[in-house]
Amino acid sequence: MFKAELSNPNILKTSFEAISAIVDEIQFQTDSEGLRLDALDRGHITFLHLDLKASLFDEYICDEPEKINIDTDEFMKVLKRSKSDDRVLLSLDEGNLIITFEGQAKRTFKIRLIDMEYEPATPPAIEYPTEFSIPFDLFKNSINDIDIYSDKVSLSVDSEKFKAFATGEFGEVNIEFIHGESVKEEASSVFSLEKISEMLKADKFSDNVTLSIGNDMPLTLSLKMISEEGELRFLLAPRIENED
Amino acid sequence: MFKAELSNPNILKTSFEAISAIVDEIQFQTDSEGLRLDALDRGHITFLHLDLKASLFDEYICDEPEKINIDTDEFMKVLKRSKSDDRVLLSLDEGNLIITFEGQAKRTFKIRLIDMEYEPATPPAIEYPTEFSIPFDLFKNSINDIDIYSDKVSLSVDSEKFKAFATGEFGEVNIEFIHGESVKEEASSVFSLEKISEMLKADKFSDNVTLSIGNDMPLTLSLKMISEEGELRFLLAPRIENED
Amino acid sequence: MFKAELSNPNILKTSFEAISAIVDEIQFQTDSEGLRLDALDRGHITFLHLDLKASLFDEYICDEPEKINIDTDEFMKVLKRSKSDDRVLLSLDEGNLIITFEGQAKRTFKIRLIDMEYEPATPPAIEYPTEFSIPFDLFKNSINDIDIYSDKVSLSVDSEKFKAFATGEFGEVNIEFIHGESVKEEASSVFSLEKISEMLKADKFSDNVTLSIGNDMPLTLSLKMISEEGELRFLLAPRIENED
Repeated sequence: MFKAELSNPNILKTSFEAISAIVDEIQFQTDSEGLRLDALDRGHITFLHLDLKASLFDEYICDEPEKINIDTDEFMKVLKRSKSDDRVLLSLDEGNLIITFEGQAKRTFKIRLIDMEYEPATPPAIEYPTEFSIPFDLFKNSINDIDIYSDKVSLSVDSEKFKAFATGEFGEVNIEFIHGESVKEEASSVFSLEKISEMLKADKFSDNVTLSIGNDMPLTLSLKMISEEGELRFLLAPRIENED
Repeated sequence: MFKAELSNPNILKTSFEAISAIVDEIQFQTDSEGLRLDALDRGHITFLHLDLKASLFDEYICDEPEKINIDTDEFMKVLKRSKSDDRVLLSLDEGNLIITFEGQAKRTFKIRLIDMEYEPATPPAIEYPTEFSIPFDLFKNSINDIDIYSDKVSLSVDSEKFKAFATGEFGEVNIEFIHGESVKEEASSVFSLEKISEMLKADKFSDNVTLSIGNDMPLTLSLKMISEEGELRFLLAPRIENED
Repeated sequence: MFKAELSNPNILKTSFEAISAIVDEIQFQTDSEGLRLDALDRGHITFLHLDLKASLFDEYICDEPEKINIDTDEFMKVLKRSKSDDRVLLSLDEGNLIITFEGQAKRTFKIRLIDMEYEPATPPAIEYPTEFSIPFDLFKNSINDIDIYSDKVSLSVDSEKFKAFATGEFGEVNIEFIHGESVKEEASSVFSLEKISEMLKADKFSDNVTLSIGNDMPLTLSLKMISEEGELRFLLAPRIENED
């Protein structure tokens, strides 16, 4: 038996805004500790991980581990119908994920489970030279600034500043932010703007984003709840650049 | 002579959001008691009735009955230009309906009357086994919930609950609302979602909607002002369903 | 050396909403007195003039006159990225206009200067029989009213009222506003609605618009800051009408 109850739907909604932009199908893995998913996009460029601990839920019951395979678009369509003050219940019957919103009325949606073998992706373990946090808004805004000139962005950090940079046919753009953290090494990599934009749809998960970068290494972008009861993490391969 | 003045344009605006989605042309019938229209859509699926009593208007003069034929799209275009704090005056000259908005400026719009024979539709008289009211918002929201899975909706009522239900390729949706009314009989019918959505554009006419339904009978959906000085009513034929 | 600093970006943003809709390239002319531009659209129908005095800026340095040629679309793309509480700095390097927004982060955009000979348009000197001011909102709203019936508008004034009028296939619209100014002569001309709409994108420059009109003469539309430190002015050729 699996049953999980949340006092509001926004955590799921904001997570799946991003997740459904990246992968078509996911497998929830549930056990007594909580709900988890690991997935890799078709192009093997973005890895994503969602972890919602049992303690995050108002009520959480999971007698034995379950694997719940669903279509992310179908799940997102349902989540979009939630209202901020709805209670959300997740449960399972034979062959369906059941999502119930309780507000003025009781609204029950069933999504057919996908019947398939699914090997969840394993998160790669990476040692990063640098890690720092910046406001989510600032990061999102920087990516949108870059978008007017280029489809790729150079992200770099030194002991003082986080920088986002791009150059295009008609000009260039450079964003600098004093991060106030104890970053010891410099690091810089170039990423696809489109891929980062997909991640940034999860904009209500956390006020801050933690970036881990290295020289020509993948980007790890981690959104954590203050309570540490939930984390949404993305890992993005760097672009291979011709010398310029 | 016909002259009618309203202290704000929203009643007309919200009515014609729905009416102009359903019928191309209407005939206002005015007499000393007020302004009225009855119309049937091309496919003879939706009948609509609007009744605005003379007492609803700040000023109302109608010496002798008039029949005013106009294009609903043209009328809606004008109504959309109104502002909530405009006074609205309706009158006639030779060949035009004159709509005047009085606010910061005096803005006068003329719409050419349609010169045609018009036989107004007669509202069918139906005896319903059940009638109940629910919040307009809840009804509108339920229809939008259904929309993610299907293009038709089953509406039903029993002594306790109002239910909207649909099933689709990827799942199903079920909405339940405890109506708190003295409904004695059960009733259920299936309707086109698109047709109901057209009616729901009149979403500022009333906070509540009264539904009359039976088994495989038409749906009557009535929006009434608290003051009983105005009513907008729709009647929708049920869908004929193959057995499922 | 050229350097100009504004405490907020909205003056530039609203000006260039209109300017970039009218002309593809402009030449800023800067000297110790301020920043100025004169331009004529391709069809020679609209002339535009922007004048921002040195005193408008928080800091303004211009050692020697400069001519800065830029693409208006590229400039608008950058201005759209500003936030209302950003400080804005304009400066030049070899070959670029540099726009810096200072807020949470420091965001620097460079736009390549256009290398070309540019003969700035000279504003025509016109003696008008009438000049009067009306609220910008009212003017904008009137133009949008007209839009539902026609692609041209007749603007006229007499001692009492400003009027906007149009007639179309399905009706007509007439807007009247008591202007309360000492206009002695009547005047009336017909203009392209599309061309006026372009100008009205500068809707945050000023609360009022001054209109100068004559009989079959160009329209001058002037937006002035209360402080008189800035002016955005448009001059629009009248439409030549067949007799009707």
